[in-house]
Amino acid sequence: MLRWLTAGESHGPALLATIEGLPAGVEVTTADVAAALARRRLGFGRGARMKFEQDEVEFLGGVRHGVTMGSPVAVRIGNTEWPKWQTVMSADPVSADALAAANDVNAEKEVARNRPLTRPRPGHADLVGMQKYGFDDARPVLERASARETAARVALGEVAARFLRQAYGIRLVSHTVAIGTAGVADDAVLPTPDDVDRLDADPVRTLDADGSAAMVAEVEAARKDGDTLGGVVEVLAYGLPPGLGSHVHWDRRLDAQLAAALMGIQAIKGVELGDGFRTAARRGSAAHDEMERDDSGTIHRRTGRAGGTEGGMSTGDVLRVRAAMKPISTVPRALDTVDTTGAEAAKAIHQRSDVCAVPAAGVVAEAMVALVLAQACLEKFGGDSVAETARNHAAYLASIPEAMRTW
Amino acid sequence: MLRWLTAGESHGPALLATIEGLPAGVEVTTADVAAALARRRLGFGRGARMKFEQDEVEFLGGVRHGVTMGSPVAVRIGNTEWPKWQTVMSADPVSADALAAANDVNAEKEVARNRPLTRPRPGHADLVGMQKYGFDDARPVLERASARETAARVALGEVAARFLRQAYGIRLVSHTVAIGTAGVADDAVLPTPDDVDRLDADPVRTLDADGSAAMVAEVEAARKDGDTLGGVVEVLAYGLPPGLGSHVHWDRRLDAQLAAALMGIQAIKGVELGDGFRTAARRGSAAHDEMERDDSGTIHRRTGRAGGTEGGMSTGDVLRVRAAMKPISTVPRALDTVDTTGAEAAKAIHQRSDVCAVPAAGVVAEAMVALVLAQACLEKFGGDSVAETARNHAAYLASIPEAMRTW
Amino acid sequence: MLRWLTAGESHGPALLATIEGLPAGVEVTTADVAAALARRRLGFGRGARMKFEQDEVEFLGGVRHGVTMGSPVAVRIGNTEWPKWQTVMSADPVSADALAAANDVNAEKEVARNRPLTRPRPGHADLVGMQKYGFDDARPVLERASARETAARVALGEVAARFLRQAYGIRLVSHTVAIGTAGVADDAVLPTPDDVDRLDADPVRTLDADGSAAMVAEVEAARKDGDTLGGVVEVLAYGLPPGLGSHVHWDRRLDAQLAAALMGIQAIKGVELGDGFRTAARRGSAAHDEMERDDSGTIHRRTGRAGGTEGGMSTGDVLRVRAAMKPISTVPRALDTVDTTGAEAAKAIHQRSDVCAVPAAGVVAEAMVALVLAQACLEKFGGDSVAETARNHAAYLASIPEAMRTW
Amino acid sequence: MLRWLTAGESHGPALLATIEGLPAGVEVTTADVAAALARRRLGFGRGARMKFEQDEVEFLGGVRHGVTMGSPVAVRIGNTEWPKWQTVMSADPVSADALAAANDVNAEKEVARNRPLTRPRPGHADLVGMQKYGFDDARPVLERASARETAARVALGEVAARFLRQAYGIRLVSHTVAIGTAGVADDAVLPTPDDVDRLDADPVRTLDADGSAAMVAEVEAARKDGDTLGGVVEVLAYGLPPGLGSHVHWDRRLDAQLAAALMGIQAIKGVELGDGFRTAARRGSAAHDEMERDDSGTIHRRTGRAGGTEGGMSTGDVLRVRAAMKPISTVPRALDTVDTTGAEAAKAIHQRSDVCAVPAAGVVAEAMVALVLAQACLEKFGGDSVAETARNHAAYLASIPEAMRTW
Repeated sequence: MLRWLTAGESHGPALLATIEGLPAGVEVTTADVAAALARRRLGFGRGARMKFEQDEVEFLGGVRHGVTMGSPVAVRIGNTEWPKWQTVMSADPVSADALAAANDVNAEKEVARNRPLTRPRPGHADLVGMQKYGFDDARPVLERASARETAARVALGEVAARFLRQAYGIRLVSHTVAIGTAGVADDAVLPTPDDVDRLDADPVRTLDADGSAAMVAEVEAARKDGDTLGGVVEVLAYGLPPGLGSHVHWDRRLDAQLAAALMGIQAIKGVELGDGFRTAARRGSAAHDEMERDDSGTIHRRTGRAGGTEGGMSTGDVLRVRAAMKPISTVPRALDTVDTTGAEAAKAIHQRSDVCAVPAAGVVAEAMVALVLAQACLEKFGGDSVAETARNHAAYLASIPEAMRTW
Repeated sequence: MLRWLTAGESHGPALLATIEGLPAGVEVTTADVAAALARRRLGFGRGARMKFEQDEVEFLGGVRHGVTMGSPVAVRIGNTEWPKWQTVMSADPVSADALAAANDVNAEKEVARNRPLTRPRPGHADLVGMQKYGFDDARPVLERASARETAARVALGEVAARFLRQAYGIRLVSHTVAIGTAGVADDAVLPTPDDVDRLDADPVRTLDADGSAAMVAEVEAARKDGDTLGGVVEVLAYGLPPGLGSHVHWDRRLDAQLAAALMGIQAIKGVELGDGFRTAARRGSAAHDEMERDDSGTIHRRTGRAGGTEGGMSTGDVLRVRAAMKPISTVPRALDTVDTTGAEAAKAIHQRSDVCAVPAAGVVAEAMVALVLAQACLEKFGGDSVAETARNHAAYLASIPEAMRTW
Repeated sequence: MLRWLTAGESHGPALLATIEGLPAGVEVTTADVAAALARRRLGFGRGARMKFEQDEVEFLGGVRHGVTMGSPVAVRIGNTEWPKWQTVMSADPVSADALAAANDVNAEKEVARNRPLTRPRPGHADLVGMQKYGFDDARPVLERASARETAARVALGEVAARFLRQAYGIRLVSHTVAIGTAGVADDAVLPTPDDVDRLDADPVRTLDADGSAAMVAEVEAARKDGDTLGGVVEVLAYGLPPGLGSHVHWDRRLDAQLAAALMGIQAIKGVELGDGFRTAARRGSAAHDEMERDDSGTIHRRTGRAGGTEGGMSTGDVLRVRAAMKPISTVPRALDTVDTTGAEAAKAIHQRSDVCAVPAAGVVAEAMVALVLAQACLEKFGGDSVAETARNHAAYLASIPEAMRTW
Repeated sequence: MLRWLTAGESHGPALLATIEGLPAGVEVTTADVAAALARRRLGFGRGARMKFEQDEVEFLGGVRHGVTMGSPVAVRIGNTEWPKWQTVMSADPVSADALAAANDVNAEKEVARNRPLTRPRPGHADLVGMQKYGFDDARPVLERASARETAARVALGEVAARFLRQAYGIRLVSHTVAIGTAGVADDAVLPTPDDVDRLDADPVRTLDADGSAAMVAEVEAARKDGDTLGGVVEVLAYGLPPGLGSHVHWDRRLDAQLAAALMGIQAIKGVELGDGFRTAARRGSAAHDEMERDDSGTIHRRTGRAGGTEGGMSTGDVLRVRAAMKPISTVPRALDTVDTTGAEAAKAIHQRSDVCAVPAAGVVAEAMVALVLAQACLEKFGGDSVAETARNHAAYLASIPEAMRTW
């Protein structure tokens, strides 16, 4: 069983990610993880922070000479901004004087970082986090609720993705399907893992030129209006074996696990397997994936409407899941809020200048899907080394009778 | 921590549901559970089976004199059809002769129940289940993958719902939002728990008369065409405290847990929190729930776009989640499939006559939401008896400073 | 991952056991489970209840025609005494009159079963269970805390044991090491799985004739004195592969899991791996299992002091664990206690006539070890069918270089 | 639910410990954790490494200004020896030349750290770890299996212990009961939390002067003989409420959880609750804790034989658990082993000079017990802040009727 925890605050010294249960023999380096983290900063519509937010990556455990050891893999992602925050976010107590002096060092917009935040921002965890944890300051809430934490997930997702590729030949790709009201054509060709470089080179991470232009325009219009945008991303996984997940219990269904993993990303409000909500509007005769044999006798499904799952299990066809991201909650043209001290009505503070983070959300979603699939594969194939789990995987495929093969 | 398992096959002797971790003191009877199961058979568009499928309910553990004891609660839901299936689905070995004789006793449509099923139905677990588990017969797969299993969830969901109501005053309601292309108006008033009887009396479980008529017509048209339909259901929970779930780790987010619970229902392909995918198309200035104080100083959110969660936590406002159900996969006008023995191309067997199960899916979704909320409440409030957890809940609410209250 | 839950009360209609995650293809029948349950009633020193407590076994799910289907396996163990208890332990409310009438029907010793129990028995869950769950009657506590619940574990343990044997050739045996101050010789030969029938035929389940006589005498003496006895049981597992469990995280250690499983049995107060506490008194030079090669080059450990684990992993040598059972808490010569109503000092009720349950505890311990090992094997080897996991197991052993083989 | 993971290798850059689920408001500083880690290096019989192994402690998340924030708490414990190991244990690939040059820099005994270790040490994870993970070098195994990892547990245990004390007034103490064949008197007075400083000042961590002298002599004799020793430690917890853990399911029993936590410590081979194995040799009339009321009407148990649990739940009396530690496996007078390359029979390498680590094991055991109790308390009392869970705890105690009080 793969277990993983992340830790760390947005302006703390570092983010931490630890994953337990990964087999030995996965090849991965700090450069690999750093490259994955760089992909998370991609995309038209990001603000200044993404540029200076260089990620210092260091493995603290689990990897030796570029190969995992079967022990927990721990990655530390240093915060290059830490010197500016070390008093405000110090783990140990600081004097009142030191805290008072820690205001706005070199800061431009991030005013008053040493003062309690009492104007909860709509669309954020601020208010309910204060209520739940008994705080009179939203700082401890927003520091952890920030999407900066997804860097830790992307780091682990990269390790998981390498594992999937090296052990089973499974490869992932993500792309942007829509930003605001603009998007790719319904009949656009699905990207494959070989398209990742092209996707990453596109300002909004799509292969659809028209869609790209429309989405860029949508972002520019929103920026001009002091507004923000959300959108939809899609993750595809190629090379899955049939039978990941299980129909026998609800929480072993791969679709349920994927839904949790995607909905568990900050700002995601909807998840679809395959055609999702569109399928709900179809008739049964046009909603399923009929089967036939090709000339060589291999079984094929004519369509991929179900997104590559049946009965909560991977069919072996392309897995396809979508996530809907709400617009960034920190709207430049600030939203109305209250002051929790009871003071007068207020405007929510605005601390960042992104207009749209949808392209990056695809990278995060890809990481979460990789982690779910890695767990599903280990549950099915077992194994404590890449060689062992790969061997079990190959033997499983070989054991399926020819007349029942779908590949 | 609340843990639960279901067991049993569609045509086996019984379904079983066991839940561990429920406090002592929840009032519940077999009649309560039977009534909940009857609600699961509701809805225009269901076939014959729903009528003869009377559920025999029996508590086998955890309840004494109408009150839970803190020990695991186990419910057995007997299969009234069992006599017809006792040879075909016998747990113990049966002779070849007995099996050969067990064909179609009193059966009308369910032909050849004693023969291996080798024509996997598109949209079902059949083929991939055979591949995964090494079967040459889909029977063991479809017996468990069948949506009949949701009866076990509804039974536990009823226990969870009673717990939520008795301990915290939390009440749930579900309704149908769309069937096929027909649905309720976007600005329809949300139902409340007081509307449950009215909803259950409606053929498709909606309060919207026009929507109801349109959905009924949609079902009738599909039936005439030998086709099936899916749709969208919505679950609402009233009376939640702020702070269920947590922003601190992805899998503790209430939204992630809800997404898994709903996507883990048979035939569900999409899940939304609040406005979900529609939010992704909006601009930030129109996508969030701004806050203000009313005359008494209480904080209110002006809208419920986020579905009653912020940062993965319940805000205390109405929780609202949606699930998209694909059309029933067993289409009367049968779908193309293969024969796994390698025989000629085939049509999928058609074993049931439902056109649409969307109204019932709302009841199942309600049960899953109840189970998630019960777990979230116990995580937040602890307690081994209803009195204890209720006391902790009340003290928590009382501890939130007046200037921070949202109720 | 193997998950399992039991449910049911000692005098309720039935015990329930559900296990999820077991592969398809395990051969098991109700007769197999009934035979396992009969073994649980073995042993000199048991009272009357063991004789009339015939177990009605029924699979409610997961098994068809004598073979598991990969779906959750559920076993119902009916309580043949249920008619006598159906009012007192009714799940649904009963009238005061009915309850008043439900006293001592055919009862001999079990007086006043319809009245609240307010004299908590020392050594039982009674008092603290009342405090924890808010009861003014110990009935709901003792009904679940009773060791009768171990029947549900033995049922699942039998399924697990059959899985271990069929998939991997792993076989278990348990025996009694001591009762009270009597026991087997330190240098007694360890029993093997082929000795099970002989063990079960011995009045206290040992192969050591002298030890058996001494233990029988100890029981007789205690019975004469109106007293009870505990003792020590040992479970051995043969045919394990090296590498179950893991050193990489504390809770993945096989020894930690075994310790929990054994200490989690009613009345167990101590657990040892191999020589356990005796090892703590030795010097390092005489405490470990040195290695050498035999003539064929196979590596062997000269001793089995560590009980077949190193670093929290099975070595492949005989696994050996012990559990210390306290004397039965319901002592005929009753213990002092209080009355929770505040009434005068009291004597604890005495409801049963067993002197010693140690021989049966070995059977229960064996079941718990089987469940732990089944989980550990599935974690290492994966697989959804017996054939698949057996294949992975064989390929793993074959992959270990000859110069590193320990078998 | 409290979840925690440790990561890091013995000679890697750092150990990591992350705990998720801890409430906000726990007061803890890096100095507190450093002091706890210093206690882990205590005890007569330790070798050189304990002296130069200064622990650099840093919180990377979850704590701000000396108080936890409800988010995951992550501690990094730097390895001051890292410069000597940075090539041999580099996460990223190193050149063959660099590795060849990384031999024995400043080393005294730790020869050939850059060469594969192929002589598995008896009593260590070496051989079975190589078999399991497919290594031809024991280095990756022993780096993680090393007891150095317990530093990470002690760090988290300190956080848990502070939480227990601040929220509930629960306090822990551990002491040494035996080293080799020497030990404290059976009727020695149990230490209390107020004795911690005195215990830590004793060379073997006992209050029993005679026992201390005998144990010191035992260590000196073993050292002279080039041998090692194990022993027995005991952990006591004061101030527990009644009702932690539960009788309703085996894995919710507090005793089962404690057994796993203690057996999951490196080198522990046995665990006892209360009198453990000694209880198994007693008669029932002398084995249980009878109850009586004192003059004020409070219920008391006359003895503490069961170690403060009944039915798997804390009774509120002193919790008392013991762990048996085997002698250190790296025996100066080296043990026989094999060479996994197939080379000639060999002696196991000897890399360290400790004779006995039992006093330190008590500190580790104390940490594990603290973590188990913290989880058990959170399960019972819930709460997201110290204030909330403390309030629930107090209200629970207040709710127990006077006639049922045990305090």
